[in-house]
Amino acid sequence: MTTHLPTSNPTLYGYWRSSAAYRVRIALNMKGLEYENYFVHLSRDGGEQGKSPYVDLNPQMLVPTYVEEELVLSQSLAIIEYLDERYPHPPLLPQDPARRARARQAAFAIACDIHPLNNLRVLNYLAGELGVGDGGKRSWYHHWILQNFPALERWAQVDAGSGPYFLGDAVTLADICLAPQMYNARRFDVPLDDFPRLVEIDAALNELTAFRNALPDNQPDAQ
Amino acid sequence: MTTHLPTSNPTLYGYWRSSAAYRVRIALNMKGLEYENYFVHLSRDGGEQGKSPYVDLNPQMLVPTYVEEELVLSQSLAIIEYLDERYPHPPLLPQDPARRARARQAAFAIACDIHPLNNLRVLNYLAGELGVGDGGKRSWYHHWILQNFPALERWAQVDAGSGPYFLGDAVTLADICLAPQMYNARRFDVPLDDFPRLVEIDAALNELTAFRNALPDNQPDAQ
Repeated sequence: MTTHLPTSNPTLYGYWRSSAAYRVRIALNMKGLEYENYFVHLSRDGGEQGKSPYVDLNPQMLVPTYVEEELVLSQSLAIIEYLDERYPHPPLLPQDPARRARARQAAFAIACDIHPLNNLRVLNYLAGELGVGDGGKRSWYHHWILQNFPALERWAQVDAGSGPYFLGDAVTLADICLAPQMYNARRFDVPLDDFPRLVEIDAALNELTAFRNALPDNQPDAQ
Repeated sequence: MTTHLPTSNPTLYGYWRSSAAYRVRIALNMKGLEYENYFVHLSRDGGEQGKSPYVDLNPQMLVPTYVEEELVLSQSLAIIEYLDERYPHPPLLPQDPARRARARQAAFAIACDIHPLNNLRVLNYLAGELGVGDGGKRSWYHHWILQNFPALERWAQVDAGSGPYFLGDAVTLADICLAPQMYNARRFDVPLDDFPRLVEIDAALNELTAFRNALPDNQPDAQ
């Protein structure tokens, strides 16, 4: 990373393999918004996310950060809710309050109860401070997915009905969180046989250009 | 827990010491909503949250769950966003999209990056599967708070301005997440000297009846 950050905006500061950045890429693509990409390498030289100048944008030292005019915003779900309010079409939440709530319920189950436990800095703490080996880290990773996927599978069966996506016929925040989580589950060989509806929804999502173009492997900084 | 769940509603299924239930209690109090309390004991007999009939309401086996008419909803932030849409007064998010986003940014930093790492089932996994002792669990607990509080302190300094709360003059979702997190930090003796603005905001919040009545120690199931 240079010492100069881009001055044009909107800009997304991300990393190809960050699930949180992946979510925001999907949302930006769904909205058809143009933005500049800036890549923050999370492991090279101990990680660029903890160094100046990026740390001034994001004192949590995490990706993503989204910058638009004077607004500097982190936390993927805060960014996506912002995009949905500022650029309402197509909506990323249903109209009905109860359905909106069910979409958020699924999104937060992933974004609060699975992803933060399995992200890079936690795995590094397990290995470094607690001396957990590769097998132990793998069990940890699987555990938090398998602890929460049964609930997601059950909610999807109820909420999706016969529609292709988590809340039925339209893509919502739930789907935007699901696809990156399914990508991670596959990357770490988590068995998915017990979650047929999630597998089906994920397959439907990955047929959409907005989702395909957001895939980690399709990013310019993919390694 | 009996095998019968309450049939009147709205009902909040919670536990006095659950931070997530604590957040929802604050929101319900802020809105002045009447509801029935149902207590799910998280440790007695291995935890009632994993047993029938509660597990049918909440397949994630977590508290809280909020039931209102046909809607069965879990995930504290999904519940609070729902309450805010369904019962708009007083609002729990600012009007301006950028300010709303900053409120959610702080809320999610707590609800995604601190709280899920420090909750009971994770501490149980550390002790059980990984053999981490009390000292190691304490270090873990402190680590995730101290990793993220500097960002919250900095955001609070910018966003609160001279107002008493996280986003200035009105209580928002950020405050609803902050107060329970400060309670937890104190409970585990995390040093707070470096976070004067957070301490100040928390003190202002705890002067409000809605927050005081939601304190864990003031709940009927407190031990």
